[in-house]
Amino acid sequence: MTVVGLGPMGAALADALLAHGHPTTVWNRSPHRAEPLVTRGARRADTITEAVAASPLVVVCLKDYEAMYAVLDPAADALSGRLVVNHSSGTPEEARAAASWADGHSVGYLDGAIMVPVPAVGRPDAVLLYSGPEPLFTAHRAALESLGGATYLGADPSLAVLYNTALLGMMYASLNGFLHAAALVGTAGVSVESFAGIALDWFLPSVIGTILRSEVPQIDARTYPGDAGSMEMNLTALDHIVRTSAEQGVDVDFPAALRTLAERAIAEGYAANNYSVMIEVFRKQRAAVS
Amino acid sequence: MTVVGLGPMGAALADALLAHGHPTTVWNRSPHRAEPLVTRGARRADTITEAVAASPLVVVCLKDYEAMYAVLDPAADALSGRLVVNHSSGTPEEARAAASWADGHSVGYLDGAIMVPVPAVGRPDAVLLYSGPEPLFTAHRAALESLGGATYLGADPSLAVLYNTALLGMMYASLNGFLHAAALVGTAGVSVESFAGIALDWFLPSVIGTILRSEVPQIDARTYPGDAGSMEMNLTALDHIVRTSAEQGVDVDFPAALRTLAERAIAEGYAANNYSVMIEVFRKQRAAVS
Ligand SMILES: [Ca+2]
Ligand SMILES: [Ca+2]
Repeated sequence: MTVVGLGPMGAALADALLAHGHPTTVWNRSPHRAEPLVTRGARRADTITEAVAASPLVVVCLKDYEAMYAVLDPAADALSGRLVVNHSSGTPEEARAAASWADGHSVGYLDGAIMVPVPAVGRPDAVLLYSGPEPLFTAHRAALESLGGATYLGADPSLAVLYNTALLGMMYASLNGFLHAAALVGTAGVSVESFAGIALDWFLPSVIGTILRSEVPQIDARTYPGDAGSMEMNLTALDHIVRTSAEQGVDVDFPAALRTLAERAIAEGYAANNYSVMIEVFRKQRAAVS
Repeated sequence: MTVVGLGPMGAALADALLAHGHPTTVWNRSPHRAEPLVTRGARRADTITEAVAASPLVVVCLKDYEAMYAVLDPAADALSGRLVVNHSSGTPEEARAAASWADGHSVGYLDGAIMVPVPAVGRPDAVLLYSGPEPLFTAHRAALESLGGATYLGADPSLAVLYNTALLGMMYASLNGFLHAAALVGTAGVSVESFAGIALDWFLPSVIGTILRSEVPQIDARTYPGDAGSMEMNLTALDHIVRTSAEQGVDVDFPAALRTLAERAIAEGYAANNYSVMIEVFRKQRAAVS
């Protein structure tokens, strides 16, 4: 296999291949990045054409799609008939455009998202997401499993980028939720360690996770019965959180932003639905986009 | 024991006491609410004075602190020397004021927060939080355990209300994070059930939970080294989430609010710190409070 792009993540991918005994060719714009990998058994290609010609599977790990085109375009002929697995980050449209570019050059294309930090790459419990034609994934699955657990998302090549972005957004929301909560209890002298004993060891997995899990079938059915708690009741609770934050002298902007979303749901006619109806609000883009 | 206030939660508390074989007196402003409990063995008090005189421990479950004063003030003399455990919801200041009120009438006072839904009350894995004088908690712990697992937070009576509010805020942040993410992947036809298999079964507990857990010692030490990812890098990621949301035609307001918080952190001088430094931002209340 060939790895193109030897930043920390690309180097980790190459190391994972070497650790699994795959003959591995590497290429990087600054060639010195290849040296430690050559010491560990990789073959360094002198040109990108030589790099892609060396293997049926070319794993690309560059900064963005623009960097991918800059590197691969000159080697497009040599790529013909091979598979590119692209881990460059970008938007869903960029992923679809890259798949079209590959198709135009008779290059197989899977888009990938590495959902674990560099040190976890290559471990069987690492999560790597892939999207693109299923036959390509199936044919190369065994090789891809050397990089970590391989999860196939579907034929739409944008799915890996889309999942990656969605999960990142979910992460930032939850990080802010925890950090704001820790700031709030901190006003009474509670250490984050002490709060984490309840907030992280119990509340996050056992309450938030369980509530969300239980709501999934209703969300997919797009029914949001409010008998166990309406958006109106949730607005009252959010208003209470805003007022308590103000009373305790911590930031009110974050809970106020959550309150504004509940107000928007009510303005859109969802006052009697349960909180999961927020997904219907999120599905609509408002006219004014900042 | 006596239970004052027989809404769904108060009735569940009384039922839990009866199930554990405690002689239980109940009172509600509308007396008919007591009837099913009397059938199950409770004693109905005709007046609030009779209700509080019947037991050394009086569990109060009313709408708010105002309702608590309206009910208990006329019975303050009878309450003297007894313990009130108050589950009314309100702000930390209201909890501290209630503790002072109790102190002025020689009434013991613990503030409580019931962190589970009504059907879970009385189960050993139910989480009920208590704050107030530790000797009072210790003396009555065995009785309180009949209502569910009893967690003592500390002497400051506002802690139960504060934890409750902070955890609720954390919940809303995470719910929005998941629902927005589900809306985003939904633009590619992904069902919420399918997304939940990664987002809830793996990402929430194993990535978000693990990241936050690993940050706790640094947050308590108030050191936020940015070597594994700076706020500047996080702003780039958040900007990417906003742009992808716009590209996919879903709400941008929620990710834009998260982006604004990162911009605020950078404006406050935290560009080179890691994301957990947001707690320092949250600790400061800005001048303009909506
Ligand atoms: Ca990618
Ligand atoms: Ca309370």
